[in-house]
Amino acid sequence: MLAGDLRARGLDIITTREPGGTPLGRRLREAFLETEETVAPRAELLLFSADRAQHVELLIKPALEQGRTVISDRYADATAAYQGAGRGFPEKTVESILKFATGGLKPDLTLFFDISVERALDRLRGRDSEGGSRNRMDSETAEFYSNVRLAYLRIAEREPKRFRVIDANGSMEAIRKEVAAVVADLLG
Amino acid sequence: MLAGDLRARGLDIITTREPGGTPLGRRLREAFLETEETVAPRAELLLFSADRAQHVELLIKPALEQGRTVISDRYADATAAYQGAGRGFPEKTVESILKFATGGLKPDLTLFFDISVERALDRLRGRDSEGGSRNRMDSETAEFYSNVRLAYLRIAEREPKRFRVIDANGSMEAIRKEVAAVVADLLG
Repeated sequence: MLAGDLRARGLDIITTREPGGTPLGRRLREAFLETEETVAPRAELLLFSADRAQHVELLIKPALEQGRTVISDRYADATAAYQGAGRGFPEKTVESILKFATGGLKPDLTLFFDISVERALDRLRGRDSEGGSRNRMDSETAEFYSNVRLAYLRIAEREPKRFRVIDANGSMEAIRKEVAAVVADLLG
Repeated sequence: MLAGDLRARGLDIITTREPGGTPLGRRLREAFLETEETVAPRAELLLFSADRAQHVELLIKPALEQGRTVISDRYADATAAYQGAGRGFPEKTVESILKFATGGLKPDLTLFFDISVERALDRLRGRDSEGGSRNRMDSETAEFYSNVRLAYLRIAEREPKRFRVIDANGSMEAIRKEVAAVVADLLG
């Protein structure tokens, strides 16, 4: 919806995602989701970072150089939250790995769709009962998701201008309006 | 040959390799070798580090805890040399990523089989004419391999006790003897 709204304003938008935004990234994502052995938390963090480095270098940077606007479903903050804080690794260490992976490239704006852990878990259970499938990242404990959420909220405190928290408890239409307001704020 | 010699001394030896020492690692190695797009140097370093983290956690550490001796064909120094120095990344940055990947685990002994870049390239060309195949890592420039070799020699200077340089220009038998002497030195 955001991409559509921005295209209507005349922006040249490219939408992408992590992990799996490049051909190599898709293979790495598959390897991670499909392997039958445990994935070591350090390996997980480095694997998501490898995917990101490839994504930045082969897709995001070239698009920006062509004057396009990139909307990515997840970026470095997701690794800081899930693979870093969620697994209990020191923030500084994780930051330095992410800085290496991205070459220091940061988004102009990051939107965090915030919802209580309880409600998020309810939604996952709803998906289950509708026959949906869960992957490795959807099967963690409430404590894990709570640490992830708190890590995101710490980023919001540190970088309030770039990192904006959107209340995701409301209706789709309410969320869309909130996003539009935040984005209008950035584009002026 | 080293594994055989050490088993003859009664040691419980496990041989392994990087990249690709675990099931996840094999998939990551394949993804790296087979992808048709360019692999960004930062992605390459992080990918080899992810493979290593998995290797340490799922294979090397458990083997050591069982009192076994692990011989690995390549480890962290290879990434410092190839993916770090070979690509021109700062040594400190690379070291901190490797420390994260390995959780600080270092070998008791590292053997570097040293050969001039010219002779190594001759051997690769020999393999070509015999119908052998090259992979991504075998197709770099002489300057790249020269930087890799110098990076290894700098590690030898910094850690002369752990990191031993073996002259690999001689015959197989001469090399085997030199390795045996160095290992006997460690085992006492």
